[in-house]
Amino acid sequence: MRISRDDINTMQQRYRAHFINCLSGFKSANLIGTADKNGNTNLAIVSSVIHLGANPPYVGMIIRPHTVPRGTLENILETGYYTINHVHEDIHIQAHQTSARYDEDISEFEEVGLQPEYSDAHTAPYVLESRLKMGVVFKEHKPIELNGTNFIIGEIIEVIVSDAAVGDDGFVDIESLQSVAVSGLDRYHKTTAMGRLSYAKPDSPPQKID
Amino acid sequence: MRISRDDINTMQQRYRAHFINCLSGFKSANLIGTADKNGNTNLAIVSSVIHLGANPPYVGMIIRPHTVPRGTLENILETGYYTINHVHEDIHIQAHQTSARYDEDISEFEEVGLQPEYSDAHTAPYVLESRLKMGVVFKEHKPIELNGTNFIIGEIIEVIVSDAAVGDDGFVDIESLQSVAVSGLDRYHKTTAMGRLSYAKPDSPPQKID
Repeated sequence: MRISRDDINTMQQRYRAHFINCLSGFKSANLIGTADKNGNTNLAIVSSVIHLGANPPYVGMIIRPHTVPRGTLENILETGYYTINHVHEDIHIQAHQTSARYDEDISEFEEVGLQPEYSDAHTAPYVLESRLKMGVVFKEHKPIELNGTNFIIGEIIEVIVSDAAVGDDGFVDIESLQSVAVSGLDRYHKTTAMGRLSYAKPDSPPQKID
Repeated sequence: MRISRDDINTMQQRYRAHFINCLSGFKSANLIGTADKNGNTNLAIVSSVIHLGANPPYVGMIIRPHTVPRGTLENILETGYYTINHVHEDIHIQAHQTSARYDEDISEFEEVGLQPEYSDAHTAPYVLESRLKMGVVFKEHKPIELNGTNFIIGEIIEVIVSDAAVGDDGFVDIESLQSVAVSGLDRYHKTTAMGRLSYAKPDSPPQKID
């Protein structure tokens, strides 16, 4: 089927939200851990974390004021730190539950049954149960005026991950950690690797390298 | 293992590229189709397409000058249009091969064996073989001065997808289209759905809704 801009305009609001949210493809599932200056914690699932660059190690995410508790963005701007924690199969239901609209003074950690964990490197709480977690220092806030969302850029200052998942060439086997992928607003997927492909060169087809 | 900012600094360059690229989690795999004002086509795989908003329907992507043929960004700015085409299992090797550094006057469509397809709505080429494709009009270019990458925002003006993949509530079953997920620079994954979860509410746990 061919769907025009006019067709999108006339979709019922919830239908459109599901439809458009699916179009970009598979998404990462991460829990963003923050604390305010008094140490009150906040935890929010986001599916918009993306790689921005390896050197320096930058990571970006979109925070939408209407869907993520505002506490996350406020805490990041107040303290300068946040954590990004992979969601894996065994915690994906608790992770999803962090998107409920809890009151501002309630910690999603406690409500959904996940444990905060701290490091010496910064003040933001990790998710103990997560199998790949990053400590991040806030670098830049780019408001997207077009629709009132926020693009947040951070620099990775700490990574906590199982040795066994990191290969000889630095590749991290996130499938072995059972990290999940997301499609649309609410579907979670596990993955099956089809293989790694060699660095592409004009005169030879890609080779499987694992 | 706990990896500090200093550890990241001292990683060998290629090791760091693999390592950091894996940290954000699973990524979408899309082919960006463009043409210059003379109709010469360009095709580039990107793993950075993200959902930005449903109403208006906005989609974002990061274009890194060093890894994607610059023709893509130049064509978008020159003509104002591009297409985003899901990569599925049967074309993921051809899709990966578009990242080879072909000369500027060579079309990746021809080199990797994918077919351009056109619509009346705009001038950018779709990938005939893709099973979910979007026509997009360029809206805004946000340079990320921190590392010289580019955040490109577009508005979806056309969607081409099989009827069978779109559910009653607008949800698109991209797994049924065999769309792939990517981890790091070069691993491709198929997916297995664990189910959809109901909209989260503070006083009740999420329910499976499919």
